[in-house]
Amino acid sequence: MFHEYKIRIGGYEYPYYLSYNTEILIGKLRALGVCSVFIVYDNSINKDYITSLKNLLMGEIKCESVGISVGEHNKNIDKVREISEYLLECGIDRKSCIVALGGGVLGNIVGLVAGLLFRGIRLVHIPTTVMAATDSVLSLKQAVNTKFGKNLLGMFYKPEMVFTDYSCFKSLSKRDYNAGLVELIKNLVSVIPEHIDEVYGILNDRVEYTFEEFNLFLDLSIRAKCGLLINDMYEKKDGLVFEYGHTVGHAVEFLSRGEIRHGEGVAFGLMVESEISRELGYLKEEEVDIHYKLINKIGIIDQLTRINTYSEEEIWNVMKYDNKRGYCEENEGTVPMVLLKSLGECYVENGSYVKLVQEDIFKISVNRVFNRISDFT
Amino acid sequence: MFHEYKIRIGGYEYPYYLSYNTEILIGKLRALGVCSVFIVYDNSINKDYITSLKNLLMGEIKCESVGISVGEHNKNIDKVREISEYLLECGIDRKSCIVALGGGVLGNIVGLVAGLLFRGIRLVHIPTTVMAATDSVLSLKQAVNTKFGKNLLGMFYKPEMVFTDYSCFKSLSKRDYNAGLVELIKNLVSVIPEHIDEVYGILNDRVEYTFEEFNLFLDLSIRAKCGLLINDMYEKKDGLVFEYGHTVGHAVEFLSRGEIRHGEGVAFGLMVESEISRELGYLKEEEVDIHYKLINKIGIIDQLTRINTYSEEEIWNVMKYDNKRGYCEENEGTVPMVLLKSLGECYVENGSYVKLVQEDIFKISVNRVFNRISDFT
Repeated sequence: MFHEYKIRIGGYEYPYYLSYNTEILIGKLRALGVCSVFIVYDNSINKDYITSLKNLLMGEIKCESVGISVGEHNKNIDKVREISEYLLECGIDRKSCIVALGGGVLGNIVGLVAGLLFRGIRLVHIPTTVMAATDSVLSLKQAVNTKFGKNLLGMFYKPEMVFTDYSCFKSLSKRDYNAGLVELIKNLVSVIPEHIDEVYGILNDRVEYTFEEFNLFLDLSIRAKCGLLINDMYEKKDGLVFEYGHTVGHAVEFLSRGEIRHGEGVAFGLMVESEISRELGYLKEEEVDIHYKLINKIGIIDQLTRINTYSEEEIWNVMKYDNKRGYCEENEGTVPMVLLKSLGECYVENGSYVKLVQEDIFKISVNRVFNRISDFT
Repeated sequence: MFHEYKIRIGGYEYPYYLSYNTEILIGKLRALGVCSVFIVYDNSINKDYITSLKNLLMGEIKCESVGISVGEHNKNIDKVREISEYLLECGIDRKSCIVALGGGVLGNIVGLVAGLLFRGIRLVHIPTTVMAATDSVLSLKQAVNTKFGKNLLGMFYKPEMVFTDYSCFKSLSKRDYNAGLVELIKNLVSVIPEHIDEVYGILNDRVEYTFEEFNLFLDLSIRAKCGLLINDMYEKKDGLVFEYGHTVGHAVEFLSRGEIRHGEGVAFGLMVESEISRELGYLKEEEVDIHYKLINKIGIIDQLTRINTYSEEEIWNVMKYDNKRGYCEENEGTVPMVLLKSLGECYVENGSYVKLVQEDIFKISVNRVFNRISDFT
């Protein structure tokens, strides 16, 4: 059970391995020819897994590891400094390799550490969440938050390789697994709608997926993302479509202070932004319905009722600081968003991939989503 | 009085303008088509200059400015965060342009800020010291220090343009101007020895140089640096020659806590590392002498007597943490250094551009330099 992909983004290329077998991972790490490996792992990961990884590596390769506890609240430049200094203290040098073992937030922070240390040393991602494995490692974006907003400090940095050890997913909660599938749903509606039926038939709310079914999700995610990012590694043009659902999603994620998972926020964002796209006359009613159907199939609509505790006003006020600002001329009382013209087609106006959305249109759409969610549950 | 160069490093290219006329600078900034400019300047710069710059820009372009006090002691990631947050608070967005107005340290810090904010926004360097104008802006290296060593966190980031306003140099002290010429001397002995006589005839200890003489220094610096960096933007192979004199130089600069200028440290480093190159049988005695003659001509040997207060032991202990570690296999009791095989030719052994130097060879060479310095003064 092993699959291999070539990830091509801009002029860069790196291999992506999916396996159920940790020893294959060790072989790939050895093949990089590094003398020392520094594993930065999420403290929530089973310690036995870390120990077995280190035991397999040791002997031939110097191996150090450090566990960190990260979340959106401490995804900042201070954490980058703290990790960098710890690694320097442990003797990391410009020939070492850093392994980022964890979810999307950890991958982003450690990716930035690898990009900055000695002005860039080798980086290997071992994503341990569905979201990280099917989305964040399929991008060169690394970044941390500032008090003025999400992901405002970062860089584009390429890993040497990505290795997804499917056995890591066994310990994921249903809630985390499902939230991790939302980016796939976003890719389906915004880039590869021709695969919606195929995936819809497989999705379920029990997270019962075979290795090959997960491989299909990964394969489709890679096709959707690399198909666009090969010509837009900075994600400023065609690649902006991957921000669909994220303006509203980031805002509710931010408001919840970690209560709402990134994927759940984006699921809500997809519904709201599809309603906005319909309200503005782009998406048809049945195209909006497909968003709800897919999201409902993975059983996370229940989680979204938490969002009902925030007013449209609160969400709007956070959205005003969204980091898509600067992609277009701005207007008081509007927020730039990525919208769909139809399934698989991003709305583009005069070369701009973002649309300025007015507050009243946003509020109508949010209320519509709140109403439809309560019908579902 | 205007000169224009194309700086080519790796696959990147940016224009370099040298002028005596601030209005030409404003024209070039306008031509970038930016809506907002954020000037980060060194607090030691004449405030009238900042005001006149802003007055010339304002009206058409939104312009904010902030003065900072920087040195090796606070060239760190906290300063990067502080500046970034200040700029975000002032409303910087991904279409803005950052102007780094100051010396090499400021250029490095602000260059990193520009590289990280929104994962990279436009950067213009206006170097106000001779060292910054003829050396640090001719490289894509941006970096800050950590408590474990100099320049350990950074990235490679290209400016949109460099503009050197020669009128800024009028306020430089003789000491700073002279220290700024040391990198040129390094380039002469290590890359373009065919120009040594020409420059030697012009160098003096009174910093009496015409605009055209300074332009010659710049022209030669660009030829030396870009000639190698066009094929080695990461400065890990041929480009490592620019580290000649820096292993010892950084160590004494570090020990002095700012007392000794970077250029002065490098001048001392050039003398010591040339003596080491001779001791190991590479450089001839007369080639070493040329190092002393050039450095003596700009009258900074007096400053170097300060270094006599540090023991060889102290300098060696700092050198052990030099950031060239990791370029080669290491050995206890040695420090990797870039040495010369002959004038204009870097010592390369089995593809490695660094040579492991033993403590006793280093100590003999330092003592020789201390003795020769006292003969000069």
